[in-house]
Amino acid sequence: MKIFHTPEGIRRWSLSHRCAGRTVGFVPTMGALHAGHASLMRAAVAQNDVAVLSIYVNPTQFAPHEDFDKYPRTWEADLALAEEIGIRAVYAPRDPDLYPKDFSTWVIVEKVSEGLCGRSRPHFFRGVATIVTKLFHAVLPHRAYFGRKDAQQCAVIRRMVRDLDMGIEIVEMPIVRESDGLALSSRNQYLNPEERIRARALSRGLFSVRDALTAGERDLTTLREIMLDALKDVRIDYVEFVDAETIEPITEIQKPILVAVAAYVGDTRLIDNLAYDPITNTAQ
Amino acid sequence: MKIFHTPEGIRRWSLSHRCAGRTVGFVPTMGALHAGHASLMRAAVAQNDVAVLSIYVNPTQFAPHEDFDKYPRTWEADLALAEEIGIRAVYAPRDPDLYPKDFSTWVIVEKVSEGLCGRSRPHFFRGVATIVTKLFHAVLPHRAYFGRKDAQQCAVIRRMVRDLDMGIEIVEMPIVRESDGLALSSRNQYLNPEERIRARALSRGLFSVRDALTAGERDLTTLREIMLDALKDVRIDYVEFVDAETIEPITEIQKPILVAVAAYVGDTRLIDNLAYDPITNTAQ
Repeated sequence: MKIFHTPEGIRRWSLSHRCAGRTVGFVPTMGALHAGHASLMRAAVAQNDVAVLSIYVNPTQFAPHEDFDKYPRTWEADLALAEEIGIRAVYAPRDPDLYPKDFSTWVIVEKVSEGLCGRSRPHFFRGVATIVTKLFHAVLPHRAYFGRKDAQQCAVIRRMVRDLDMGIEIVEMPIVRESDGLALSSRNQYLNPEERIRARALSRGLFSVRDALTAGERDLTTLREIMLDALKDVRIDYVEFVDAETIEPITEIQKPILVAVAAYVGDTRLIDNLAYDPITNTAQ
Repeated sequence: MKIFHTPEGIRRWSLSHRCAGRTVGFVPTMGALHAGHASLMRAAVAQNDVAVLSIYVNPTQFAPHEDFDKYPRTWEADLALAEEIGIRAVYAPRDPDLYPKDFSTWVIVEKVSEGLCGRSRPHFFRGVATIVTKLFHAVLPHRAYFGRKDAQQCAVIRRMVRDLDMGIEIVEMPIVRESDGLALSSRNQYLNPEERIRARALSRGLFSVRDALTAGERDLTTLREIMLDALKDVRIDYVEFVDAETIEPITEIQKPILVAVAAYVGDTRLIDNLAYDPITNTAQ
């Protein structure tokens, strides 16, 4: 497994594979890899001739009061997992290279970025869209893999790739959960044992909403009450029913939707969601 | 000479040349090609194994009240000139492909975009940075060629390419002028004979400032007066002395500077500039 620290290094490696007729899959991450990331890496390895992982805790998607400094860094374990899965190259840029002092260019995805997490974290998706663009320019992949746990991020990246003619196929993978339902997240490490139990509320609420939806419930007020009821012991940031593509609030369930939740358990902000398609009556 | 209308088409062509070990030069234009564009195309042909021209009048860099509709379109003559110079492929995207109805992604270059033309044309550089990014993603060139007549555009593109790790070399070519000094521009076609004569004021003023600078004049008020004096018969949008890299106003002449002017001659807005390096005492 090769490790590159500069855009030029990984770009040369990736282009040499493209020019040899091989497809390049790419999994961008902030490290602290868990089974959710592993599912992305396995898909990238299975669906492409070579697969690249990037590890970079991107400072521009954290606000000053957020957890950039304490975000978990598990470099050795991450590399071991990547190697075991069959990742062929790791791109691990160094901070000063990626954001020089007078850095001033941003990729902004309007509308899709503005609701949900974009409201609570105003610069978050600007940071995400910008770093993903930078990583794409360095890796030049055919396909890139993202987890549906970050459903709004998936919508932002899909829109950006289309609008900017990036020519990259975005592959979304299902949410990976603990046996009690909690969606995997590097931030779950912040939870103490008592919070870890309370954190089940998010998935429990979503599962109840899923059961109501597949049983035919269509009243948004009723569905919302089901969700709020499950969240009594956590501090809600938002509970929203939105269009799965535009991330705009819906007034009726006609097209694929997203039920999205963000809540604080202690000091830890967790997100989770459910995608529901009324035409096929399936949820995931 | 091949003509492509889609990003996928030109990207496949360009990658096939890159993979054969050839360098790809790129000249993005809005068509209505003149001798300034010809100098960019000749440089791209001379310095690369293959050269690509794009022709696209980009709607997002025009404000509603500006000249998008009347901007000159000279498709047949443009193709003939490109072919004669040795351009190997033309990328001519079609409007609805490039900006679908719910288009919502923008590349923003802060600070460098904000002075000069960015002040008079608030969305102009957002439109430029976004379309150039889209064109770069389609063409994937090694080098791209821009004219120094659009000096602020050059600074915006240089900054964007660096910040977003685009891995493209930006080559800037000198301003091409008519024999009486007027900088070539597709918009010169709008001038009637009387305006065409008055339009000399911009270059005449810049040449006087150049002579004063190279003779050792360093007082910005004096230099500014020289410029304003030449512009008495046109309507000034701005006259500014700025840092050549950051496009920020200067208070003394220590590093390479730009003397930039924009003025209306009749209804036609013209721009011109002078780059001066105090270390070598050279101007262009």
